[in-house]
Amino acid sequence: MKNKKKQSAKRGRQRMSGTEVMPLWAGGFLERLSKEAFSYSASFPYDKRLWKFDIVASIAHARMLGTCKVIADEESKLLSSELEKMLREIELGKLKLEGNYEDIHSFVESTLTERIGDIGGKLHTARSRNDQVVTDMKLWMRSAIAKLCEAICELCEALLSASKKHIDFLMPGFTHLQHAQPVRLSHHLMAYFWMMQRDADRLIDLHRRMNLSPLGAGALAGVDFPIDPKMTAKMLGFDGCMRNSIDAVSDRDFIVEFISCCAIVMVHLSRLAEELVLWSTPEFGFVKLKEALCTGSSIMPQKRNPDMAELIRARCGRVVGALTALLTVLKGLPLSYNRDLQEDKIAMFEAFDVTHSSILMATMLITSAEFNGEKMRSSLRGDFSTATDLANELVRKGIPFRHAHSIVGKLVRELAQQGKGLEDVTLEELKQYCDAFDEASLMAIKPEVAIERRAELSGTAKASLRRQFAEAKRYIKNVRKFIAGLKLLGEP
Amino acid sequence: MKNKKKQSAKRGRQRMSGTEVMPLWAGGFLERLSKEAFSYSASFPYDKRLWKFDIVASIAHARMLGTCKVIADEESKLLSSELEKMLREIELGKLKLEGNYEDIHSFVESTLTERIGDIGGKLHTARSRNDQVVTDMKLWMRSAIAKLCEAICELCEALLSASKKHIDFLMPGFTHLQHAQPVRLSHHLMAYFWMMQRDADRLIDLHRRMNLSPLGAGALAGVDFPIDPKMTAKMLGFDGCMRNSIDAVSDRDFIVEFISCCAIVMVHLSRLAEELVLWSTPEFGFVKLKEALCTGSSIMPQKRNPDMAELIRARCGRVVGALTALLTVLKGLPLSYNRDLQEDKIAMFEAFDVTHSSILMATMLITSAEFNGEKMRSSLRGDFSTATDLANELVRKGIPFRHAHSIVGKLVRELAQQGKGLEDVTLEELKQYCDAFDEASLMAIKPEVAIERRAELSGTAKASLRRQFAEAKRYIKNVRKFIAGLKLLGEP
Amino acid sequence: MKNKKKQSAKRGRQRMSGTEVMPLWAGGFLERLSKEAFSYSASFPYDKRLWKFDIVASIAHARMLGTCKVIADEESKLLSSELEKMLREIELGKLKLEGNYEDIHSFVESTLTERIGDIGGKLHTARSRNDQVVTDMKLWMRSAIAKLCEAICELCEALLSASKKHIDFLMPGFTHLQHAQPVRLSHHLMAYFWMMQRDADRLIDLHRRMNLSPLGAGALAGVDFPIDPKMTAKMLGFDGCMRNSIDAVSDRDFIVEFISCCAIVMVHLSRLAEELVLWSTPEFGFVKLKEALCTGSSIMPQKRNPDMAELIRARCGRVVGALTALLTVLKGLPLSYNRDLQEDKIAMFEAFDVTHSSILMATMLITSAEFNGEKMRSSLRGDFSTATDLANELVRKGIPFRHAHSIVGKLVRELAQQGKGLEDVTLEELKQYCDAFDEASLMAIKPEVAIERRAELSGTAKASLRRQFAEAKRYIKNVRKFIAGLKLLGEP
Amino acid sequence: MKNKKKQSAKRGRQRMSGTEVMPLWAGGFLERLSKEAFSYSASFPYDKRLWKFDIVASIAHARMLGTCKVIADEESKLLSSELEKMLREIELGKLKLEGNYEDIHSFVESTLTERIGDIGGKLHTARSRNDQVVTDMKLWMRSAIAKLCEAICELCEALLSASKKHIDFLMPGFTHLQHAQPVRLSHHLMAYFWMMQRDADRLIDLHRRMNLSPLGAGALAGVDFPIDPKMTAKMLGFDGCMRNSIDAVSDRDFIVEFISCCAIVMVHLSRLAEELVLWSTPEFGFVKLKEALCTGSSIMPQKRNPDMAELIRARCGRVVGALTALLTVLKGLPLSYNRDLQEDKIAMFEAFDVTHSSILMATMLITSAEFNGEKMRSSLRGDFSTATDLANELVRKGIPFRHAHSIVGKLVRELAQQGKGLEDVTLEELKQYCDAFDEASLMAIKPEVAIERRAELSGTAKASLRRQFAEAKRYIKNVRKFIAGLKLLGEP
Repeated sequence: MKNKKKQSAKRGRQRMSGTEVMPLWAGGFLERLSKEAFSYSASFPYDKRLWKFDIVASIAHARMLGTCKVIADEESKLLSSELEKMLREIELGKLKLEGNYEDIHSFVESTLTERIGDIGGKLHTARSRNDQVVTDMKLWMRSAIAKLCEAICELCEALLSASKKHIDFLMPGFTHLQHAQPVRLSHHLMAYFWMMQRDADRLIDLHRRMNLSPLGAGALAGVDFPIDPKMTAKMLGFDGCMRNSIDAVSDRDFIVEFISCCAIVMVHLSRLAEELVLWSTPEFGFVKLKEALCTGSSIMPQKRNPDMAELIRARCGRVVGALTALLTVLKGLPLSYNRDLQEDKIAMFEAFDVTHSSILMATMLITSAEFNGEKMRSSLRGDFSTATDLANELVRKGIPFRHAHSIVGKLVRELAQQGKGLEDVTLEELKQYCDAFDEASLMAIKPEVAIERRAELSGTAKASLRRQFAEAKRYIKNVRKFIAGLKLLGEP
Repeated sequence: MKNKKKQSAKRGRQRMSGTEVMPLWAGGFLERLSKEAFSYSASFPYDKRLWKFDIVASIAHARMLGTCKVIADEESKLLSSELEKMLREIELGKLKLEGNYEDIHSFVESTLTERIGDIGGKLHTARSRNDQVVTDMKLWMRSAIAKLCEAICELCEALLSASKKHIDFLMPGFTHLQHAQPVRLSHHLMAYFWMMQRDADRLIDLHRRMNLSPLGAGALAGVDFPIDPKMTAKMLGFDGCMRNSIDAVSDRDFIVEFISCCAIVMVHLSRLAEELVLWSTPEFGFVKLKEALCTGSSIMPQKRNPDMAELIRARCGRVVGALTALLTVLKGLPLSYNRDLQEDKIAMFEAFDVTHSSILMATMLITSAEFNGEKMRSSLRGDFSTATDLANELVRKGIPFRHAHSIVGKLVRELAQQGKGLEDVTLEELKQYCDAFDEASLMAIKPEVAIERRAELSGTAKASLRRQFAEAKRYIKNVRKFIAGLKLLGEP
Repeated sequence: MKNKKKQSAKRGRQRMSGTEVMPLWAGGFLERLSKEAFSYSASFPYDKRLWKFDIVASIAHARMLGTCKVIADEESKLLSSELEKMLREIELGKLKLEGNYEDIHSFVESTLTERIGDIGGKLHTARSRNDQVVTDMKLWMRSAIAKLCEAICELCEALLSASKKHIDFLMPGFTHLQHAQPVRLSHHLMAYFWMMQRDADRLIDLHRRMNLSPLGAGALAGVDFPIDPKMTAKMLGFDGCMRNSIDAVSDRDFIVEFISCCAIVMVHLSRLAEELVLWSTPEFGFVKLKEALCTGSSIMPQKRNPDMAELIRARCGRVVGALTALLTVLKGLPLSYNRDLQEDKIAMFEAFDVTHSSILMATMLITSAEFNGEKMRSSLRGDFSTATDLANELVRKGIPFRHAHSIVGKLVRELAQQGKGLEDVTLEELKQYCDAFDEASLMAIKPEVAIERRAELSGTAKASLRRQFAEAKRYIKNVRKFIAGLKLLGEP
Repeated sequence: MKNKKKQSAKRGRQRMSGTEVMPLWAGGFLERLSKEAFSYSASFPYDKRLWKFDIVASIAHARMLGTCKVIADEESKLLSSELEKMLREIELGKLKLEGNYEDIHSFVESTLTERIGDIGGKLHTARSRNDQVVTDMKLWMRSAIAKLCEAICELCEALLSASKKHIDFLMPGFTHLQHAQPVRLSHHLMAYFWMMQRDADRLIDLHRRMNLSPLGAGALAGVDFPIDPKMTAKMLGFDGCMRNSIDAVSDRDFIVEFISCCAIVMVHLSRLAEELVLWSTPEFGFVKLKEALCTGSSIMPQKRNPDMAELIRARCGRVVGALTALLTVLKGLPLSYNRDLQEDKIAMFEAFDVTHSSILMATMLITSAEFNGEKMRSSLRGDFSTATDLANELVRKGIPFRHAHSIVGKLVRELAQQGKGLEDVTLEELKQYCDAFDEASLMAIKPEVAIERRAELSGTAKASLRRQFAEAKRYIKNVRKFIAGLKLLGEP
């Protein structure tokens, strides 16, 4: 065997002497793929990122082939030990992910064959690149989901910690970007917590749905060797197997769903970023971003620009674009595998990279932001944001809400014309609008009182926030438990 | 009380004498909303579709207000009984959803106040349109999810039934729209089954995630009345309550997720539709669509056009558009409620209408399609689609797969040049390419044999399909059980 | 002939007795189109909007057929006079656009045949719905372009007029939403003028490119009658004819381009709307929107919400969605006509309606906005927005810009720490940072001076604005001239 | 001066010793930009592609500053000669575009300052990165437009040449992917020609609209030095200057329009690609793609997959995604420059790269495709695609078209049931359906005759094609003339 190995290894090297590596499928072809076509179609420049998952999955496949006697035991061992060696060499930087390969699968198989000769060619028995690539991507995605969930947990902890720290900061709550009712800054920040919670929840659902092995599907019709797909599934940490081989190689739902999850995360971050940009204007002045996260201007020496927040906001567009791109690619494609599907990876990687780095950046922004409690509190002065509470005082005296709303509406308008706020009003003035007003009415318009009255369940009172904090902690713990339970085979 | 009721009812009518109905918020305004602004902003033309959910939620709210003593018991009863009356009248067509109302909430409250006077104004106590509209939409969505799941079950049954019926139809399996390997038509159809299964699964997850009541959030900060949000949540079939009032009124995640689910469904249907269009060309001739689902040409008398399939394919674009639209709307919005959010309903209704009607149409197409088994089988002749099986025969003799692949590649090329197919080859001819070929090799290239050899798990053999059928049945049952467990309060 | 006419008119009526109208193509069909298929595919509910263009184009076609002797002269006259009658009746509301028709073409032809009998059937000679519908849409688009350009002119006039009125209002110019350099409000408003100018320019280019008649293309291959496509083109105001019949019926470029133009308009308006929302917060207070264009809250009596601006901002999403939708529909469609193309109209109408109404609303907002010059000017105090001018003073003394930037950067930081602004600095203080500062430096930091120094071409000085005003006027005139030159055949 | 130069060059090097280069704006900052923020925000990895345009524009700026006496003449000369040197060194690969720079502008200015000392800092006088980057992108776009137009011309020539070569190939023209009427293959191919013609036309319009210099706008307000923007505009090949400095730095319309143009190109190519995929199935067999542009399968030895066509089709999705991304980024951005705008380049480069390479690939596919005229012609047999011509024969005898359509519809249906085509019918058989049929009717149903009868203007007859060829040639010439007139300053 050894001799044979050397010979074919030599053949391998000869192939390698050209600028382009012989594709896996070129056996029956008379013409070689044109250079332009090669460069238009090769995915190696970006799918090499899947290298570790590709090798690990190949090792599992090789072992299963041996156990099932599809290949000889020693062949199986040779294949897996050489693949493990390659894996270590790549990690150490000894084997470079370089060369004119069509894709990562070709790189691995060609390198393997160069090293161990024709036996290398047995690795592809009972497998096709069609099921292989989906396997790689699912293993990658498992790691990507773990990373995103981890980052979400950190952002959630930053939000929780900032909320706890600023529990006494009162600010105007906004609707339509107009002052609506006073709220605690903590309450506002915790709104983002619950958004991110749903984001993690969605990723966990996706993991459950996608974590089925496509191996055994072959090119599209299943394989004609007595393999054991459940064995490879188990070795690779899948919860089970796909049930239909045509579906297994055609399915890119999990990628659409993944990018869709990322897009919702980015929408959330874009809303947070918008508020950081807004709040750090001189006009608002609610927050000062850490200087190390701001940039200046090449010509205006006074500038402190919230660039990181602006970029987070903008990059939401990138992920929306990636989602649109993939949906457009998939629309109207006949079954089963079509080369069109190759475009999935570009969109998938982009969505992950943008989303992951943006969560990290948002975490840094929140962790280091200096909120200006005084500015917030002072902006409640004269803003009539407790007018609803005043109307509700009348409701408590039995006046229908619509009527009370109208009385207070008139009062607010006339006070504003006089340049006064609700905090300036006296009981006598109130009584001119409605006899039912009393001392309690004057209490009701204090932001502190108004806030503490909203203690029901989801309200902005301190008690409600304490409940939120407790639940939040429990929730983060659950997500971390989910992550800990995942079999991660490489970095996404 | 009766007198008062009449008086204010009169006031109500007076308001109605103009062309526009007084908005709920107009108490403190000096100028009326301009006509152009009214028509640019009114959502009544489309959100009236939510009428039943709005009334049912109002009834629950009124009852809770009574139980919690926020309003008097008789007031609570009057409100809920009149609302129930309105509900029945709308159902009977006696009360028309017409008039210059701003939105469905205004229609309901104004009509109520016209009928029972100022007490009507008490309904809005401890509530805002901001939490109300999210409640309505979530109740609507629960019904929409049920309807979609029901339709998916029917399509799944149609696919299952067609698969069972055509279990003996063999056809070329395609990759890159080139003949790849022979498969059973049943197997191809079942691939769509599993796609739809994931679609239903996704909707079930969405339901769990979104089924939390926003009531109690008020405008954004919670409410300052001693209400019981858990009571309304329970009455309305929610599984619990939102934890943060700002999040409750700002959150449109569930709509993005809903449209995203619809978009994936439509991608699946667009692929099915593409194949029906393709298969019904004279060139393919694999299927004949029912004439009652085809149209002709206004000038070409011979035409039988697969319009329904083309429209399904195209309408995928509409849902992708709706998804992009909503994501773009949400990008960069500060918290909490902004009027921008009104655009959510247009996208949500469109996604549902298109998706639901398309699933029904796909079901009709599949149910009535006449598959042409002979045409399919004959297209396997001379197509070399069992070349892999021939190569695998060599692999079984110990030849590495890459080598075998190359040998058969050469054989195929040369046979094709002679105008021959694999079915025409003799053992002698085979042996000219490789000595290892034998009688078994001649068997391996028969489509029937190739197919039955793919019996592992997800393969295309009859045994695999039988397993798929059994699992499929179980799955449909589970989805129907989910639907049966939902509290549905109206038609979506 | 009269008798025949009556008979077939009777046949027409008989057909009409059912709930569905016999489609134009049903001659050779045994089964009728199923109800579900009819309702899934009928476009009459929305394409009836094209009625006038359809009839006018049919009149031109009928006349041409007569002139070319394809039909008899009296037939041609009967057809066109009856079509003209129908047109008038629809305008007067006598003939309703109702009934179970497949599309507007079917409505027109069926109604015509009911009225004048079998002669009506001659109208479709040498024509197909495939070329007919593109003709209708191009005629519609010409009117839509005119309407949009007209609306743009009005918004431009509003911007120009507001700019002239507020030429003395100084405000902080923003980059990154931080104060950058002082500018005139007029200059800021005129930026929107030039955006809208490009928008009109783009529509004018589109008109030139699309204004070629598709008539004569027939179903796809041209027609086999001796017709004169140039004659119909001229009658309908086209500048020429499409050169390739397959392209003529497949081409929807003009609709993609139209929606793309609309999307850019909406991006511009969304930026303007964002600023109106921002500027009308209490924190900014730069503008007060007219009360008649604001709404209040159903529960918060103090609210004045900038809903119209928020809706403009949001509706940008709708048009982006429509663009995505149509591009997705078109992707991967084989030539020539496919039913998928029917979806074009929904996207096209939506883009127009949203864009046109949004331009009108933006015009109302600008026309009635009260800008607060005092608030703007006062916000320049202490904002260091003339720091660049101070650095440039050093540059004028020969200090390299980078160095000067660094010196002033330090000054600004230290002043800010002392709670001072640039207006508070003395010459002595300046000199501590750099000896080269002098009296002129103290002048340079006055906003009024800084602004007037930017008089080069596109700068914010008064002289530059005067030039802009003059050019703006000229430009509006040119657009109006373009509109006046168009042959408009109906309302879009 | 020399000494000073050395000293500051040293300072430059010292700065360089760290891993990160000192940003241009860091003068007044106490904290350095964090590593994470640097890597999240730096655009150098992709905007370095603009290097040549950045340097050329800087040379023009430096010269203008000298001429206008803003800097001394020798300073101006030193700046421009050193910049020219840098340009040559980069071209020769001596100066690498490497290092931790924020963006290409920082790279150029820092390198310059390292080399010539503090004088380098004078380059940025009267300029900001805000106007500089728009200038660079517009210069880039001019080259990109030229490249795209050039590629379009080549594809057009390939289409024209293939059309001329195959003028005698007859094929079924399709609507709804059903045989509609016979056409010439040339006619079908020329449809793509006219699509591409509009594509070039659109790019030419864009060039006219965008070719205005933003220089002089500074950061946003114009500049306070006596510069001459018209001079730089002229030196750089612009047709004029932007009129409003705020608009100049905020405007990204030209990029949206550019990507929109690319998206329409890609829609066209995706349609062509879909047809190549379809036509190269064994079922159609209309075309054989060059083997050097096909790939095989890693496991199925018989495969010849049309991967290049599939990838073209799919990549349409990428450009649609880029368009959506940028529109989403721009939506709701306040004026003027925001860091969000940095995302424009990623979308712009991606759109160009995908579109340009796809046009080239489509050209290769068309140039080398082997069309199978026999297969096409034979597929016309029995397809009833001249049924319209038969109906029109009756119309010529005075029978209304609707009636004729119905008669032929019946005939077709009954022939099909008997397994016959129109070519099998006899005059007697015809007469059973309508007496008016005669010998001419038998002629009319020959594809050759039907085709030649469609000679009006845009029809499929040979005469029409000859006209198309002549116009096509003229058109290509005009586009080439446009390209030749452009001042191109670098490779896109």
